Amino acid sequence: MYINGPLKEYLDDLADRSPTPGGGSAAALTAATGCALISMVANYTISKTKYQEAQGFVKDVLQISEKIRRQLMRLVDQDVEAYKKYYNATKLLETDEKQRQFKKDAIQAALKEAVDVPFNICKLSVELLKVCPNLAETGNPNLVSDVGVGALLLEGAFDSAALNVRINLKGLKDEKFCMDTEGIIETLKKDVELFKNSTLDKTQSKLKG
Amino acid sequence: MYINGPLKEYLDDLADRSPTPGGGSAAALTAATGCALISMVANYTISKTKYQEAQGFVKDVLQISEKIRRQLMRLVDQDVEAYKKYYNATKLLETDEKQRQFKKDAIQAALKEAVDVPFNICKLSVELLKVCPNLAETGNPNLVSDVGVGALLLEGAFDSAALNVRINLKGLKDEKFCMDTEGIIETLKKDVELFKNSTLDKTQSKLKG
Repeated sequence: MYINGPLKEYLDDLADRSPTPGGGSAAALTAATGCALISMVANYTISKTKYQEAQGFVKDVLQISEKIRRQLMRLVDQDVEAYKKYYNATKLLETDEKQRQFKKDAIQAALKEAVDVPFNICKLSVELLKVCPNLAETGNPNLVSDVGVGALLLEGAFDSAALNVRINLKGLKDEKFCMDTEGIIETLKKDVELFKNSTLDKTQSKLKG
Repeated sequence: MYINGPLKEYLDDLADRSPTPGGGSAAALTAATGCALISMVANYTISKTKYQEAQGFVKDVLQISEKIRRQLMRLVDQDVEAYKKYYNATKLLETDEKQRQFKKDAIQAALKEAVDVPFNICKLSVELLKVCPNLAETGNPNLVSDVGVGALLLEGAFDSAALNVRINLKGLKDEKFCMDTEGIIETLKKDVELFKNSTLDKTQSKLKG
């Protein structure tokens, strides 16, 4: 698993002429990096009497961000697995009609899984972005730039994962599933914009103040 | 060095209640991840007769992106080192005027280095973003979403690094240096927008086509 291997090896394999890891896995890593920064800010706010009123909120933030970070770290490798399943399906034999149908079904099932991984990255990124404006407002101000960076990385990860959802939807025949998924991505994107902009506004005003 | 250690350990330490690694290092990692995707697309375009006309260009892209990726991977750890130097400077004794002056100078020197690391991340991210629109246009179209993700991550890394430049400039007394640096960041940001938007436009139109 890449998550337990050296950082350099992951980046080298990403750059290499090999299909995995690819853009979906990179999006999961970037979202996990954003999460980690949000956890760091929460960790530096917890148990400080100076930020007494924020204690309940930042404890919740830490619990959410660490839960989401664990999920995202698994998705770094799950994206690789999903691609392998798809690749294996495309290599199935099709010498008769029965095999041809089996292969078609296997490809469609693998593509749905290949959509599911980046779609989860999108949903998890928005879930954490939601807490960022309030964290920029009430968290330890010495780390406010880290809240800003966290929000920027979660936005970059969302947009990257959304691109991967779209490229995998292209091969799917289930039109209703495609339209529903596209619709949810569009709605989530509006939330992403809102939460990121609000976080950056608060970050900038604290940096100036 | 984090770059040779396990990916999970880096993310755990980022999330922890410890000052390093922090947002600057996370920006370097994100930029290196974007770079790696650009290298992957170049690698999948090189030596394919289908993309004959793009060969000269993609060979140049690969050389640039791998050079920049190596620099960014070093910056993942250099940001950690820069913070430690700053932290050590703030802990210097100041029992007399001579020591006080020495400490002030050491803090200013360390802050300039702490600006330099994210400033380099900004410059390197733009340098690679420049090639992205043409790569989305002429590179292997099966990987066009990876060019898009590469550009998105380079933009996220640029904005993240720019926030880290700004927070470190706050402590610097050299007003001319601060104004010059701010000015360059603002100019570079315009290029970032231009190259990212152009890359995404080309990516989207290929995904639709």
